[in-house]
Amino acid sequence: MKTKYLRNTWYSAGWAHDLGDEARAIEIIETPLVIFRASDGKPQALHDQCPHRFAPLSRGKIIEGDIRCGYHGLRFNGKGVCTHNPWSERIPSSANVQSFPVVELDGIIWVWMGEASKADEAKIRRYPELVDKNYRFVFGYTCVAAHYELIADNLLDLLHSPFLHPGFGEDWFPEHSWRIEGTTVYSDYVAPSFQGSEYTDTLWPQTDGKMIDNFESVRWDPPCLMELRGYNGVDGMNVMEEEGFLNAAPHILTPQNAASTHYFWASGIRKSESTVSDADHLALVGTAFELEDAPMLQGVQERVGSNTDMLAHKPKPVTLPGDVANVQARRILKKLIKADFTK
Amino acid sequence: MKTKYLRNTWYSAGWAHDLGDEARAIEIIETPLVIFRASDGKPQALHDQCPHRFAPLSRGKIIEGDIRCGYHGLRFNGKGVCTHNPWSERIPSSANVQSFPVVELDGIIWVWMGEASKADEAKIRRYPELVDKNYRFVFGYTCVAAHYELIADNLLDLLHSPFLHPGFGEDWFPEHSWRIEGTTVYSDYVAPSFQGSEYTDTLWPQTDGKMIDNFESVRWDPPCLMELRGYNGVDGMNVMEEEGFLNAAPHILTPQNAASTHYFWASGIRKSESTVSDADHLALVGTAFELEDAPMLQGVQERVGSNTDMLAHKPKPVTLPGDVANVQARRILKKLIKADFTK
Amino acid sequence: MKTKYLRNTWYSAGWAHDLGDEARAIEIIETPLVIFRASDGKPQALHDQCPHRFAPLSRGKIIEGDIRCGYHGLRFNGKGVCTHNPWSERIPSSANVQSFPVVELDGIIWVWMGEASKADEAKIRRYPELVDKNYRFVFGYTCVAAHYELIADNLLDLLHSPFLHPGFGEDWFPEHSWRIEGTTVYSDYVAPSFQGSEYTDTLWPQTDGKMIDNFESVRWDPPCLMELRGYNGVDGMNVMEEEGFLNAAPHILTPQNAASTHYFWASGIRKSESTVSDADHLALVGTAFELEDAPMLQGVQERVGSNTDMLAHKPKPVTLPGDVANVQARRILKKLIKADFTK
Repeated sequence: MKTKYLRNTWYSAGWAHDLGDEARAIEIIETPLVIFRASDGKPQALHDQCPHRFAPLSRGKIIEGDIRCGYHGLRFNGKGVCTHNPWSERIPSSANVQSFPVVELDGIIWVWMGEASKADEAKIRRYPELVDKNYRFVFGYTCVAAHYELIADNLLDLLHSPFLHPGFGEDWFPEHSWRIEGTTVYSDYVAPSFQGSEYTDTLWPQTDGKMIDNFESVRWDPPCLMELRGYNGVDGMNVMEEEGFLNAAPHILTPQNAASTHYFWASGIRKSESTVSDADHLALVGTAFELEDAPMLQGVQERVGSNTDMLAHKPKPVTLPGDVANVQARRILKKLIKADFTK
Repeated sequence: MKTKYLRNTWYSAGWAHDLGDEARAIEIIETPLVIFRASDGKPQALHDQCPHRFAPLSRGKIIEGDIRCGYHGLRFNGKGVCTHNPWSERIPSSANVQSFPVVELDGIIWVWMGEASKADEAKIRRYPELVDKNYRFVFGYTCVAAHYELIADNLLDLLHSPFLHPGFGEDWFPEHSWRIEGTTVYSDYVAPSFQGSEYTDTLWPQTDGKMIDNFESVRWDPPCLMELRGYNGVDGMNVMEEEGFLNAAPHILTPQNAASTHYFWASGIRKSESTVSDADHLALVGTAFELEDAPMLQGVQERVGSNTDMLAHKPKPVTLPGDVANVQARRILKKLIKADFTK
Repeated sequence: MKTKYLRNTWYSAGWAHDLGDEARAIEIIETPLVIFRASDGKPQALHDQCPHRFAPLSRGKIIEGDIRCGYHGLRFNGKGVCTHNPWSERIPSSANVQSFPVVELDGIIWVWMGEASKADEAKIRRYPELVDKNYRFVFGYTCVAAHYELIADNLLDLLHSPFLHPGFGEDWFPEHSWRIEGTTVYSDYVAPSFQGSEYTDTLWPQTDGKMIDNFESVRWDPPCLMELRGYNGVDGMNVMEEEGFLNAAPHILTPQNAASTHYFWASGIRKSESTVSDADHLALVGTAFELEDAPMLQGVQERVGSNTDMLAHKPKPVTLPGDVANVQARRILKKLIKADFTK
């Protein structure tokens, strides 16, 4: 087993609405998985490799809720048990595949990559607004060729925004603070009387021309589950009291391997507050994450190579005020990974 | 020298009709070769590297049956002897290139990759139907990113067909048997009263609507020279006595390296039995080999990486009835390679 | 530090006219650089990596002659000193970047990759004709996937021309000589009464139909700075006395790494001697360098892999008369690199 990932934790295998009748392949912490729905619709996760000739099961078909290998036809249920051998009455005793606990919650497929006996659904980090009828979300996925902690750094330190995301406001220079609650890190930004940008104009046209009070809160939970919540107030709304127009944006990172990350992002508004079209909404935030963040993160990855541990990097990186939350998150994760492997 | 390939054997460098007036490059068991025709039309094979500045000779031109290096103009004949130096009367004594025995037989260019003194044309595995006027063949070539033994496994175990090749009949569930004659392995399939498929309908429209008795025989000769012969009988033809409409399909595998194989395939019918157009014939079988087999084999290769030795693989692969012939072929080849290197 | 490149020397980072208002990235001897112009227009060169989060500075913008990191906004001047931190009054003491001496001379950006104290502008190899009003040049750049010494070999041994460059004359079989002056190697070619080619017809239509006396002189200076000068005489002009129509062609090689080279080439005529259009001129020489030389050199690189040292190569390459100058240049460079690392 690798020591560089937290194993006993839930990772996202994607948006639930993307998992239909067909099997899907995804590699998580260097383990190839096939994800599919059983007859009752519940998602299943197996090692994506037939024990017969090692074909990827994800090239197969779902037959009565089991996955049938596309090579020689062995079928496996969601527990990884072989349920049908088309070539004999007998099912070989070793014909089984490793299965992983899976849960569909808040519109997300969650997979537990550690010891099955420790999988506790109650500990899944919740994103209830994703399935709240009062909200409207747009969704995206991009595979970023960068270590997941570099991407978490990027989100915990939004001070990159005025430089990397001009559409979010080149004049957004907020006050920054941070705090820790248990293993959760918050990185908060307050920009009172901020001049609106393409971002606010697009999401809330009713703010156009007015000065905006902005409060942006980034939350990180281990190993790399994040959410950005931005309150945008006009006419004296108290954004620190969560008044103002809300943009709730889950950003969920799933490590593929040490240099590649599945980046699932969503961006939501309250239906009562915004009439933005999904197309305009998607274009606005997709540009930021996929055309601005991703290339920069990939550029950083090219420079650092396998030296992605910023806490131990030599030479020591120059530290700016915006890095304080990153450092805390990295320390917490390092401790958790260490504990995970000594338990 | 590498120990993982049989050296003292004939490998196919391609279909003879593809070798015209120009030199062709092909890498066989990790050795780059240039193949060209001498003035008398006979094929020649040299190490594809000029001894002067190491340019690939295959970038050169054929001049009077010799290959002229495209960089500085040294010429070499099919024995690898330098025949002309444009820059001096003198030909440097070390200006020669390794040559390999070559034979054109049955429409195939065969190259001997071992000790030249052991090259025996009489031992070339014959495919006489390829040049038999009573037959009509379509030809294909695809470079498959998989170890050659994985491809041989695929052909020796046709029980993958109903799952991977729906066009060959999703209801084709034959009886399987195998036998060894010397170093030849046969893997035979009998499917009496098989309902015709897109495959039989296309090749022999006269069978449409009738029940078909099918006898399919796969032959493997070391290192990886194969042929599929299918007899398809209607109206009481005894396919076990080789009555019925014949599809003869040489499948000739030439290892490029440990993870890539030159896959030369042909598919033939008897002119007297079929009026299928070459275009329809090619589309039918090309789909199966290039769009169905190749991606699955490449998927398996991705999973097994360098662990392609199924006899020694850990964990041990689950064995199904269809694997018996594969195992025999792998054992024979392993013995031959061992003997080849201790001779 | 690597020992395989000469460090204390000037390398070309490109044509000066290609460096405008935006930063450019180039990797030289395995070091990524960002090149940009300060407010006074003078070129600057820094290590292309921000000391904060290791982002490539070349993704940033030039602000008042400094480069502003595109990630979090730190600014650096051409000395690598941080001049502005948008997030604090304080500039971290370690916030600086390695800078490299740069000079713009003869239309070329030159960067010194060794110890800064040894950088001596007076030692830059001059190409004065590039900025001489009496000349007209066309310029090109191609990244060749080959070691720079293989490319220098190619230029020092023009005897490849009749085979690789038919447009330069398939009948051009000159007398060859060479000489050394200090660390400069000359490789000279004399072809009296040479029948004109596509090359001479295009550059000097007035020579069409006449026999041409050709004198071609290739000059190499370490590490890999080259120039081809060709004199083409008709009607009794004495080309050995530098009479005749001149083609002056700087070929400047900058190693990116051991298997990739930045190849900057220019080709010039005297305005008084030629009315060739730039488009025709560029097509003629671009074809030779990019479509004929580059693929052959890449083919050689594939064959030799990391064994690019022809002086020590096993097996020993066959030597032809044209190789004498190559061998001298390689010996000189080897000595210089050794001295560079024992100083």
